[in-house]
Amino acid sequence: MKATLTILGCGSALPTRKNFPTSQLLEIRDKQFLIDCGEGTQIRMRQMGVKTNRLGHIFISHLHGDHVFGLIGLISSFGMLNRTADLHIHSHSDLEKILQPQLLFFCEEMPFKIVFHAVDPRKHELIYEDRSVSVYSIPLKHRVPCCGFLFEEKPRDRHIIREMIDFYKIPTWRIPKIKQGEDFVTDDGETIPNKILTTAPETPKRFAYCSDTAHSDKIIPIIQGVDCLFHEATFMEAEQLRAKQTQHSTARQAAETAQKANVKKLIIGHYSARYIHQNELLKESKAVFENTILGEDMTVYEI
Amino acid sequence: MKATLTILGCGSALPTRKNFPTSQLLEIRDKQFLIDCGEGTQIRMRQMGVKTNRLGHIFISHLHGDHVFGLIGLISSFGMLNRTADLHIHSHSDLEKILQPQLLFFCEEMPFKIVFHAVDPRKHELIYEDRSVSVYSIPLKHRVPCCGFLFEEKPRDRHIIREMIDFYKIPTWRIPKIKQGEDFVTDDGETIPNKILTTAPETPKRFAYCSDTAHSDKIIPIIQGVDCLFHEATFMEAEQLRAKQTQHSTARQAAETAQKANVKKLIIGHYSARYIHQNELLKESKAVFENTILGEDMTVYEI
Repeated sequence: MKATLTILGCGSALPTRKNFPTSQLLEIRDKQFLIDCGEGTQIRMRQMGVKTNRLGHIFISHLHGDHVFGLIGLISSFGMLNRTADLHIHSHSDLEKILQPQLLFFCEEMPFKIVFHAVDPRKHELIYEDRSVSVYSIPLKHRVPCCGFLFEEKPRDRHIIREMIDFYKIPTWRIPKIKQGEDFVTDDGETIPNKILTTAPETPKRFAYCSDTAHSDKIIPIIQGVDCLFHEATFMEAEQLRAKQTQHSTARQAAETAQKANVKKLIIGHYSARYIHQNELLKESKAVFENTILGEDMTVYEI
Repeated sequence: MKATLTILGCGSALPTRKNFPTSQLLEIRDKQFLIDCGEGTQIRMRQMGVKTNRLGHIFISHLHGDHVFGLIGLISSFGMLNRTADLHIHSHSDLEKILQPQLLFFCEEMPFKIVFHAVDPRKHELIYEDRSVSVYSIPLKHRVPCCGFLFEEKPRDRHIIREMIDFYKIPTWRIPKIKQGEDFVTDDGETIPNKILTTAPETPKRFAYCSDTAHSDKIIPIIQGVDCLFHEATFMEAEQLRAKQTQHSTARQAAETAQKANVKKLIIGHYSARYIHQNELLKESKAVFENTILGEDMTVYEI
């Protein structure tokens, strides 16, 4: 099972002909995590035929409209589709205050519960974990409190080699421990080393989402070596001053961050509506960090 | 100058691959009127390259999410685009209570003012007028207070016949009255009848928007003879019971209304997401009222 990132929208404040406001769906270890939810998120899902039955948690980076205006529509539709599973929203605590009156008015008698989890965007800490995935906040530098998210797979079990298990007549009840790396001791007292019985699991994947943010070296240690970094690149370097004023990054700055953090690949996005030819942004980023991908709406990327 | 209706979205509660939630832009006498504002309205405008510099008034039929969730995004973008003209919203008074806290949170320091006008959806009355257009509410029958809107052009001035004006040496200051139908009396006391000096203006256009609503004969006298009727057709006749329960109309019912009201043409829309082949809805409507048009997203219709 691959980990994938589906970009639903990678525009910025103003939607364009091509780009919806920000929203991404991360699919990892049989679960779906929605990251930000700009206007039209549910529409993009419909257009792509994305099923959301494994979506339990939504992470909101900050409370600017282009990252949250799609929430009420998405939730309202979940209600109409008779969703019953709890929906968890992780965000700055103000979101609950803003959303709750709308939910009361528009979504009465919903067949599921919304659970708000307050995230302190100034801290880098574990904000969610389950059996197979951990999520950490990444403090970012923006005009309002804002944080990115680091998604980390937990180590998987080792794969057993069926033939060897049969050969040593290892009983089924021992298998779970062997998958976790234990050696096997036969009735004769012979120790069969684990590496003969199993092969190594896939390396756990790590994905970091950093949007919106001014350029900042403070995030480097947190995102060090991730398999995939999504980093905003709202502007070109020529608009560096505007980037600084609005606390956004340039494509070049996104690439520098990727390089310093030694990430495996970089996806850029959150493009200002002024750029019709986004390839210019890609070019600028590639000049610094070759393995840059130009994020595009309605596209699925392997992590 | 033609009057046109641009359908931005003609889906219903759940958006589909094809249809955004409800929103329409009426352009008449050099002005734009937005009718309902479902999620993604501003996105559709961008996709179509619609400029909104002549948009001053928004009319909201009722407070279900698929008719209002796009408002906050649209308004927020107007703010970013430095709109300065007042924006008037005509709707049930509850909208202000719902929208105001969001505006305070997301749209501080907006360079323009939003003026809310409360509409009583139980009454058929004049709710707006300017030099050239009048708008009346049309009480509808839905699960929540809801009204449609009747847009009426005011009579235009008659067209002067330049040659005759010159021939009778009519001074410029008399022209406005002559355009309004007055005869001209020469210095010799001769009366020149207006019909020699002018030609008739275009007949004023009338457009009626009726969504969402259960079938009801009460609207017939109000919409009698309109040039164009938009009427919701959420269901097929086979789902008549469901239409009744949810207080929506079937395609056949929309057509019957159009026929009884003797309208010139009918555009249907607000289709339930269950209909993949919307032509079936068109067929059902055409069987009763031949001049039916299947409303489609991102399409411009002449009134």
